[in-house]
Amino acid sequence: MGPHPAVAAIRLAVRRALADVLDSLPPRSSAEPPPLVLAAVSGGADSMALASALAFEAPKLGIRAGAVTVDHGLQDGSADRAEGVAARLRTLGLDPVDVAGVTVGRRGGPEAAARDARYEALSASARSHGACSVLLGHTRDDQAETVLLGLARGSGTRSLSGMPAVNGLYRRPFLLLDRDSTRKACHVQGLDVWEDPHNRDPAYTRARVRHEALPVLEKSLGKGVVEALARTAQLFRDDADALDTWAASAEQDVRDADGALDTRRLDSLPSAVRRRVLRRAAIAAGSPAGSLFARHVEEVDRLVTGWRGQGPLNLPGGVEARRTCGRLLFRRAGGEG
Amino acid sequence: MGPHPAVAAIRLAVRRALADVLDSLPPRSSAEPPPLVLAAVSGGADSMALASALAFEAPKLGIRAGAVTVDHGLQDGSADRAEGVAARLRTLGLDPVDVAGVTVGRRGGPEAAARDARYEALSASARSHGACSVLLGHTRDDQAETVLLGLARGSGTRSLSGMPAVNGLYRRPFLLLDRDSTRKACHVQGLDVWEDPHNRDPAYTRARVRHEALPVLEKSLGKGVVEALARTAQLFRDDADALDTWAASAEQDVRDADGALDTRRLDSLPSAVRRRVLRRAAIAAGSPAGSLFARHVEEVDRLVTGWRGQGPLNLPGGVEARRTCGRLLFRRAGGEG
Repeated sequence: MGPHPAVAAIRLAVRRALADVLDSLPPRSSAEPPPLVLAAVSGGADSMALASALAFEAPKLGIRAGAVTVDHGLQDGSADRAEGVAARLRTLGLDPVDVAGVTVGRRGGPEAAARDARYEALSASARSHGACSVLLGHTRDDQAETVLLGLARGSGTRSLSGMPAVNGLYRRPFLLLDRDSTRKACHVQGLDVWEDPHNRDPAYTRARVRHEALPVLEKSLGKGVVEALARTAQLFRDDADALDTWAASAEQDVRDADGALDTRRLDSLPSAVRRRVLRRAAIAAGSPAGSLFARHVEEVDRLVTGWRGQGPLNLPGGVEARRTCGRLLFRRAGGEG
Repeated sequence: MGPHPAVAAIRLAVRRALADVLDSLPPRSSAEPPPLVLAAVSGGADSMALASALAFEAPKLGIRAGAVTVDHGLQDGSADRAEGVAARLRTLGLDPVDVAGVTVGRRGGPEAAARDARYEALSASARSHGACSVLLGHTRDDQAETVLLGLARGSGTRSLSGMPAVNGLYRRPFLLLDRDSTRKACHVQGLDVWEDPHNRDPAYTRARVRHEALPVLEKSLGKGVVEALARTAQLFRDDADALDTWAASAEQDVRDADGALDTRRLDSLPSAVRRRVLRRAAIAAGSPAGSLFARHVEEVDRLVTGWRGQGPLNLPGGVEARRTCGRLLFRRAGGEG
């Protein structure tokens, strides 16, 4: 008799990710130790399922399996809990198992600050052990939540493209798997899981999306909405990639020898491409990507498509956009241009 | 003292749309009657506000203002109610005012069938009066609902791009205006409005989105979510337009003299463009656009990017896609190729 379908599903997803990791490695000599892959584990069902599947599949592919759990230090007893998670991971046969303590700042709000600290710790742990990949337990449900959160920002295709399946060191084998499967897989394997109370705390936007918004959307639009949101994310990611490619090449075409942009050529581009070129030019001139919003780019766009002699525009980061003699110039105040 | 801000807002929106209509007309001789613009009016707040603003603004621009109201014949007393709406429109000074009775079929479900019948009647009325444009009262809220409905289909950028501001004969001046403004404008102008009970009937998906999903999304994600969804729609429309342009030109590049597609060239395109090229080629071969889903296109895509000697694929409309000697052929069964 084979494993429970949920266990088979998590193992298949991890096996595929590991095969992809092996494909991406440079040729290794037999004298080298086997490659190491880490699972990032909070102790919740998603990441415990991930760790169990990694422990099962990695040895069959000649890969060493380890894990990292991050103690955010935000709740009483978090250090003890992290040690408890680590002990369970060692029982699964994972080695090495790191507990990484972090200090969460305030930058960008509590959720962003915790995330930044977490990824920094994961990367540091991967570096110190020479791991070639870190697996993350995000599921299709997390992806749907991410798309909805991006939708609320209203800033276009890129913000709706969710989390990538592969991003440098990081891989997300479970992006096509639903959260229920990871819960079932833990249950039938007798794995204890711990649910972060933050996941239910309505002070957090993501918790509200998970427990209020998505259930009502499923009720209004049908059960398929989570899958549709996750599938949409992949399509948007592809769209955004293609348009970024176009914009990069268009930017070369519209720049003159002095680095100014030719407004006539800009005007002949489709607006989706033109706005991306303008955004790239503003960022190249020193405007920080995170502070440059769609409304800034729209204002610059009006220097091209709605020209009536406007004065220079001030963009974030002290960058000035100015149109003169049919040319668009981005210049940082006090900078070299 | 000027008009109430809500009245000023609906008038400004209509004035801009009318100016755009005038811009798009061919030069007219003074012997011709002034151009006619119709408002499509259900009797609800959105369309009554639209009709009142059209009656006010059109004469100042030398435009005749008329209206059409459609009797769907789906509720008892609908004919009387349509006549009541028409009488109120005549009181506003609109002329001509048509009551168009339609028979709603069943094709595509009750909402789609009613919509198809409505647009057919609006177009017929515009033709019979020689109108140069028909204004529709859809607001930012309707647009947000449309985006959410598209999201649930999960079929990518085009399905999220909502309703266009201009589409042939039709214009939507209120797409950036919230529904509340149209209600206020009716109220302060003493206009009676009638709310279609279908708009509150939870048997209709749109009614559920309006009364269940959007309020909960606003609670979870903040009040700006309707505006963000509507803004997103415009960005997606622009993205989809740009990618369609690219795909049209790429399709020329990958077709050989016999009309087959070169798989090597296809493989070098970004996936978002390649999938659009494949979709275009399938439709050109006779596959109906409405039945050709993302999963069909993905399967065809695997003939290009995941080639392992697969056999021919059957697509909707009896179209076959087959890879042979590095070339992709779309052929309709029994057709010429």
